[in-house]
Amino acid sequence: MEEWDEIEVPRNVKDIFIEMKNTAELMVDLAYSSILFNEEEMAEEVLELEEYLDLLNYHLMVHAVLAARSPKEAEQITSILHMAHAIDDMSNAAADLAKMVLEGVELHPVITEAILGSEEIIGKIYVSADSILVGKTLEELDLATNTGVWIVAVRRGKRWIFDPDGDFKIFPGDILIGRGTNTSIDYLKEIARGNIKVMGNE
Amino acid sequence: MEEWDEIEVPRNVKDIFIEMKNTAELMVDLAYSSILFNEEEMAEEVLELEEYLDLLNYHLMVHAVLAARSPKEAEQITSILHMAHAIDDMSNAAADLAKMVLEGVELHPVITEAILGSEEIIGKIYVSADSILVGKTLEELDLATNTGVWIVAVRRGKRWIFDPDGDFKIFPGDILIGRGTNTSIDYLKEIARGNIKVMGNE
Repeated sequence: MEEWDEIEVPRNVKDIFIEMKNTAELMVDLAYSSILFNEEEMAEEVLELEEYLDLLNYHLMVHAVLAARSPKEAEQITSILHMAHAIDDMSNAAADLAKMVLEGVELHPVITEAILGSEEIIGKIYVSADSILVGKTLEELDLATNTGVWIVAVRRGKRWIFDPDGDFKIFPGDILIGRGTNTSIDYLKEIARGNIKVMGNE
Repeated sequence: MEEWDEIEVPRNVKDIFIEMKNTAELMVDLAYSSILFNEEEMAEEVLELEEYLDLLNYHLMVHAVLAARSPKEAEQITSILHMAHAIDDMSNAAADLAKMVLEGVELHPVITEAILGSEEIIGKIYVSADSILVGKTLEELDLATNTGVWIVAVRRGKRWIFDPDGDFKIFPGDILIGRGTNTSIDYLKEIARGNIKVMGNE
């Protein structure tokens, strides 16, 4: 478990709030991925993110309550706390999903089928050495726009990188965990295999 | 309010489950959209979807409980109910967000900033008459793969179409509500304005 008190928390309400929303959404993606691939380490990451989100929520409340100066402001600030609460609920639901993996519950095959049969699915994309992805950063590639796939994690050797940054550079042999439609995941798989050499709106 | 007892519910556990997951995800997108654009009709749709999801959840439980034949099956089926519960929690959080719109709560500007400043944002895309989108169906366009934007709703004149199907054909003047990264929303806006005439991996 990491020490969150060493972690830098954004300093203003807006940035804390954005961080909360992004974190909750990442947690949902990682939770489904951890179930699909039965990945305990990924499930643990979801629970760590839940703690981080609780910390963010606490800071948000402190900042928000301090900021109230008038009844109108108080009502507006209540709306922030209300939305933060909803985001926290979503993150708790994601954590509940991750706990299923950690508790080693015998999962029904329908669960995998549902995650793979939804409008947005989770896919595992193997990067071969002759793919145009190799050596480029996620920012350069902008896979979200060019292929419709959102990268939530990368497996490199025995190591997981969760929520990789824009300056993360893809290596041959990386396994990308992405969220997207069936078509967009298939498209990225073809690129990652080296079968498609020009991507998206290039 | 529509009558859900006239609505067709999928007939097996897998399809009910997929429908639940898709519905909850749509609810989250629509809830954020309703807040961002202060759209009561959209918020009402979220609450209607919540009722639909409750109905799906009920049918899922009946089917699942009926299916249990052995202790191992019972454990597996419990995992389905567990996941359905988490999905239901997410949908309730989305409904809580939508209620903020319907209750006319004075929203803090930071809320809009957070929705527009996240990694995935919601955007409003106006379709001009000379856009390549016009006259094509969503299935033909496959915007999710080709632009990275997920269409959650369309405004046509005074009417909303929520969660449009693949055979939905885009008209000039349509306003698309999409979820995607900033870059992908901007890209689709340029296509919708008619400034970009070739899209994605064509």
